Amino acid sequence: MEDDMPTQDELKQQAAQQAAAMVQPHTVLGVGTGSTVAYFIDALAARNQQTPLNLKALVTTSSRSQKQLEANGFVVSELADIDQVDLTIDGADRVDHQLNGIKGGGAAHTLEKNVAINSKKNLWIVDESKIVTRLGGFPLPVEVLPVSAKQTFAKFAAAGLKPEFRLKADGSRLTTHYGNWIIDLHVDPLPIPAGLAAYLDQTVGVVEHGLFLNIADEVLIATSKGTIEHWVR
Amino acid sequence: MEDDMPTQDELKQQAAQQAAAMVQPHTVLGVGTGSTVAYFIDALAARNQQTPLNLKALVTTSSRSQKQLEANGFVVSELADIDQVDLTIDGADRVDHQLNGIKGGGAAHTLEKNVAINSKKNLWIVDESKIVTRLGGFPLPVEVLPVSAKQTFAKFAAAGLKPEFRLKADGSRLTTHYGNWIIDLHVDPLPIPAGLAAYLDQTVGVVEHGLFLNIADEVLIATSKGTIEHWVR
Repeated sequence: MEDDMPTQDELKQQAAQQAAAMVQPHTVLGVGTGSTVAYFIDALAARNQQTPLNLKALVTTSSRSQKQLEANGFVVSELADIDQVDLTIDGADRVDHQLNGIKGGGAAHTLEKNVAINSKKNLWIVDESKIVTRLGGFPLPVEVLPVSAKQTFAKFAAAGLKPEFRLKADGSRLTTHYGNWIIDLHVDPLPIPAGLAAYLDQTVGVVEHGLFLNIADEVLIATSKGTIEHWVR
Repeated sequence: MEDDMPTQDELKQQAAQQAAAMVQPHTVLGVGTGSTVAYFIDALAARNQQTPLNLKALVTTSSRSQKQLEANGFVVSELADIDQVDLTIDGADRVDHQLNGIKGGGAAHTLEKNVAINSKKNLWIVDESKIVTRLGGFPLPVEVLPVSAKQTFAKFAAAGLKPEFRLKADGSRLTTHYGNWIIDLHVDPLPIPAGLAAYLDQTVGVVEHGLFLNIADEVLIATSKGTIEHWVR
């Protein structure tokens, strides 16, 4: 019987296909990044080849997705070229039952949040391992200005947030697309996510954090039971 | 009688001298920028020449002040080199009676706020024309990420905040030290500054705004009566 169970990759593909089916023709689409999003781009390309979607515009949050989209014949625009995104499809590092999430494992949460917040609808595709009852189980990424990073780090440490600078493989500090650094907060689970988000929002030196609260409208979850769950806020 | 009145510049110099007298030896000093701060650096240098202050370290928020400090024999450090600033002396574009202020006329409020927030004490030197009963009379500068600046601008406009991109003399958009743009909010007076600050803090795409609330501890004011007022929070 177990041999009949779809593999994790097959499940991600199923979820990606379901997401691709939710894209409306003649709309502005946002595309995130990640392994499931890569399958989504494949599924979107297949659908577009069968019946052209005539998307008004398409923006993305990563150069990897951009390359894959362009290789499939899509034209990628900048957020500055459009007014608003209709639907953005992205992954997430953790999602709770209220559809709040943690993003930024790829250090791109600042751009991801800027696209998400300017999208009428946000759909995340994840596998079951990302679902948590309380947000945690994953370090919370915070993008900080280097000029005051030392003091910001000390504040986080004093507040019990267990900060750690994100490093590259060579041991040097990872620099974001915007020339900033990432401090990962290892406090787990996160104490009152909405309160923590407000604290981080008002902390001088913080550019953007990876708490995505009240942003996702729908989530597609590839479960270990072999089914795709569809959660709607 | 009127000829005996000190000129505006003489008053600024008096305030600057009073500020220089408040610097303690063997401390870490932060120095802002502006015409009165330039007089302060002169006064500090004169005092240091008479009796060396042996400052532990000195940081500044502008290359202009840095040049002037170095020309006077001071060694300028980065915020990253020190733990905390003991006293920062800076100007302000507007100050209310609760010692809250608007800064950023020089588009440097992000660095200025990062230094100020990491200073044990902040002293502003201003002339009387900067004092207001309600914060306003000066556009509120907001540093924004270019990627979503179009959408951020539209949100500010919809919220009645009268946004305007800050331009350079050649008509192109002014780019900050951090590669971002400035949107000046022309709403006047500011509606509930603490509420506006919270709104801006949590607006995705905002790097830092020019509302300095609960930051200044003391203000020296050169008045048109020819006296220096000293306000303490």
